[in-house]
Amino acid sequence: MTGELKFKDKVVIVTGAGGGLGKIYALEFAARGAKVVVNDLGGSSTGEGASSKAADVVVNEIKSKGGVAVANYDSVEDGEKIVATAMNNFGRVDILINNAGILRDVSFGKMTDQDWDLVYRVHMKGAYKLTRAVWNHMRDNKFGRVVMTSSAAGLYGNFGQANYGAQKMALVGFANTLAQEGKARNVNVNTIAPVAASRLTESVMPPDLLQQLKPEYIVPLVLYLCHEDTQETGSVFEVGAGWVSKVRLQRSSGVYIKDITAEKIKENWAGIENFDKPQYPTSASDSVSGILSAVSSQPATSAPLHRKPSTSAPTPSPSTSESVEVAGFASSSVFKTIQQTVATNGEELVKKINGIYLFNVKSSGKQQQWTLDLKSGKGSIQKGAGAKPSVTINVEDQDFVDIMSGKLNAQTAFMKGKIKIAGNMGLATKLGQIMQKSKL
Amino acid sequence: MTGELKFKDKVVIVTGAGGGLGKIYALEFAARGAKVVVNDLGGSSTGEGASSKAADVVVNEIKSKGGVAVANYDSVEDGEKIVATAMNNFGRVDILINNAGILRDVSFGKMTDQDWDLVYRVHMKGAYKLTRAVWNHMRDNKFGRVVMTSSAAGLYGNFGQANYGAQKMALVGFANTLAQEGKARNVNVNTIAPVAASRLTESVMPPDLLQQLKPEYIVPLVLYLCHEDTQETGSVFEVGAGWVSKVRLQRSSGVYIKDITAEKIKENWAGIENFDKPQYPTSASDSVSGILSAVSSQPATSAPLHRKPSTSAPTPSPSTSESVEVAGFASSSVFKTIQQTVATNGEELVKKINGIYLFNVKSSGKQQQWTLDLKSGKGSIQKGAGAKPSVTINVEDQDFVDIMSGKLNAQTAFMKGKIKIAGNMGLATKLGQIMQKSKL
Repeated sequence: MTGELKFKDKVVIVTGAGGGLGKIYALEFAARGAKVVVNDLGGSSTGEGASSKAADVVVNEIKSKGGVAVANYDSVEDGEKIVATAMNNFGRVDILINNAGILRDVSFGKMTDQDWDLVYRVHMKGAYKLTRAVWNHMRDNKFGRVVMTSSAAGLYGNFGQANYGAQKMALVGFANTLAQEGKARNVNVNTIAPVAASRLTESVMPPDLLQQLKPEYIVPLVLYLCHEDTQETGSVFEVGAGWVSKVRLQRSSGVYIKDITAEKIKENWAGIENFDKPQYPTSASDSVSGILSAVSSQPATSAPLHRKPSTSAPTPSPSTSESVEVAGFASSSVFKTIQQTVATNGEELVKKINGIYLFNVKSSGKQQQWTLDLKSGKGSIQKGAGAKPSVTINVEDQDFVDIMSGKLNAQTAFMKGKIKIAGNMGLATKLGQIMQKSKL
Repeated sequence: MTGELKFKDKVVIVTGAGGGLGKIYALEFAARGAKVVVNDLGGSSTGEGASSKAADVVVNEIKSKGGVAVANYDSVEDGEKIVATAMNNFGRVDILINNAGILRDVSFGKMTDQDWDLVYRVHMKGAYKLTRAVWNHMRDNKFGRVVMTSSAAGLYGNFGQANYGAQKMALVGFANTLAQEGKARNVNVNTIAPVAASRLTESVMPPDLLQQLKPEYIVPLVLYLCHEDTQETGSVFEVGAGWVSKVRLQRSSGVYIKDITAEKIKENWAGIENFDKPQYPTSASDSVSGILSAVSSQPATSAPLHRKPSTSAPTPSPSTSESVEVAGFASSSVFKTIQQTVATNGEELVKKINGIYLFNVKSSGKQQQWTLDLKSGKGSIQKGAGAKPSVTINVEDQDFVDIMSGKLNAQTAFMKGKIKIAGNMGLATKLGQIMQKSKL
């Protein structure tokens, strides 16, 4: 087929691959050229016992069709051993499918610590151990694809599955951070919530329903997400019966309540629940940015933010064609890159950001200023201080270069006081968008 | 104040109440009349050490203001001991604030098993242990309020917090199921994602920001959610700096792909990501219902569902005023209730559901049929079989009564084959909406 998604010589680990969804993953990756580690403890669906048979059957089926596979019988709690099987046999790991799972369904009032612990250990601890064991390897290789297996029971809740639902949602939270940490190194992490008939469901669902929910209908999404051409990361998908949808968190624009009390929250409840102008934060700092923007857009008398009057003297109006280089300041190169960003995306950034940033950069005791104007016209960057900055950033020359070259995490730098910010905090956090576009 | 939210004689457990948010919760609940268990292990912010001082200081402050409080120094992992402190001192528990937390921030590539395990044990295992220990007590009392403390790091991800983010999202999944299991007994469970300056953040944030993020701005939401008049449950809120918003999962209407393959998913990606007609499932069965509806709305040739032709003979057209009672069938009372529901909400249900349900009910070997028509006019219910049912439900007389009176969980009954369903599965799952409205 033209454009077929191939996995030639990619090494794939599939946990819980002795049956159900995991088995179909293993067979399909192998059919498309991947070398597969077929992991299965061979335990029961409630987490008891062990046997090498389940994995062996799948490996033999792959081999009989001319594919390459090796069996592993370790518990996912010993994730590093499963990764060792991949390394010893194939020398690398490209793709990890965290699929192994058990069920210990019981109403919460009757749940035992064992019901809780076993479900945690297989679903969440197991996924942690596997992912941890492949993480630095994938980052070093600048390639990796990880899939977490969540469930509608986690996303939306389900009677009798407080243990399972908690851990299925934990995997979403886990992937949220990993996607951010992996992105720059082409390590992508996505989560699926499959609705499929499997060993876990076949005894409890009627045949008509099972017919609609074949594991074969889930596998194509996972193949797509794991392909080297697919850049999707940090997303959640529901998938079943040939249907695929994307899931995201949506928050209401919320209500800012001056001198907030429980009683005022009660009065404002309809506004809090009003999703007419929803927001879609994509990271914790993006979330906080939204909160601070909401607060700082309030009349100054009601907002708790202390706004300092600008202390910068007015200077001549900026000229974008002017050089932004200053001898002795390594940051010059950063501002040259920002200058390019402004030249290309200035108009869009002015629309989105609508603020003026003053950078006070220090090098060997000397200070130099740059002003980034994303408020007027097509935006501009200049040496020196412009009129009325919305935000003032104080930073050491070398720290700023390190942040912009990716050596130093911007948020960490902020947290450690290596960047100091005054003025409109909501606008300050939007600076990340510019930095993202201007990485050295 | 008129309409002030009081907590007179309510017993509240606040974990991690020795400082930060927890301390303010404890003080404010006490000021409003509650008896408070001030739990704090007195450990460090990274989970080491222990001391009774933190909790004692808060208890003394509450007492000096004329309030009622008792200290507890146990780890949240010993949740049942904390609950015992409440029972021994106050004889009951009404409200549980799962607030205790630690941080072990580190990039995932450097994360140790200890970083992982400690964060899991305090945030998630602790919340499980506390909630498990109060659960049956609250259900027996037909009153309970539980608040989980999540974080934007869980909802949206945050560099260096793969452990914390996973467990903060786990709490959302945990609450999703508990809200459903607690609802009928007035045990409500909500989750907050606060942005607040606390012991965990004060060393890493600049003073301007801290000023905006006082714990005092978070507490009113928790008070509101825990009040006996508030029926909110299963929701997630972001809150900080006097701003409150609600968060929910939104999914795209998705794409049904006939004979699905990875390549076809690639072709259809824009559709999968299209949120123009979003959906908001509220439970796992609601989610599955949506998937099956999407699939069954496809042309019959492309859907994998086997549809059986109707075998019911046509009967006279239904009359809603006719009695639906049949001697010897306890279910008669259920259908009388459904008759009332149809009389009240029939038009709305016809719009939402657009289907005809045939009930085959068996009692001591005899079978009686009822037809619920939510397709034509204002809807109707009648004895006997109507024309062309979309869905046929087979159920034992007593099981049906048990389901409708809440003794037997509908989904469990379905899973165990106590309700058998043929026909359009998407429509079948919508039956839950009617049942919800017609509970005995």
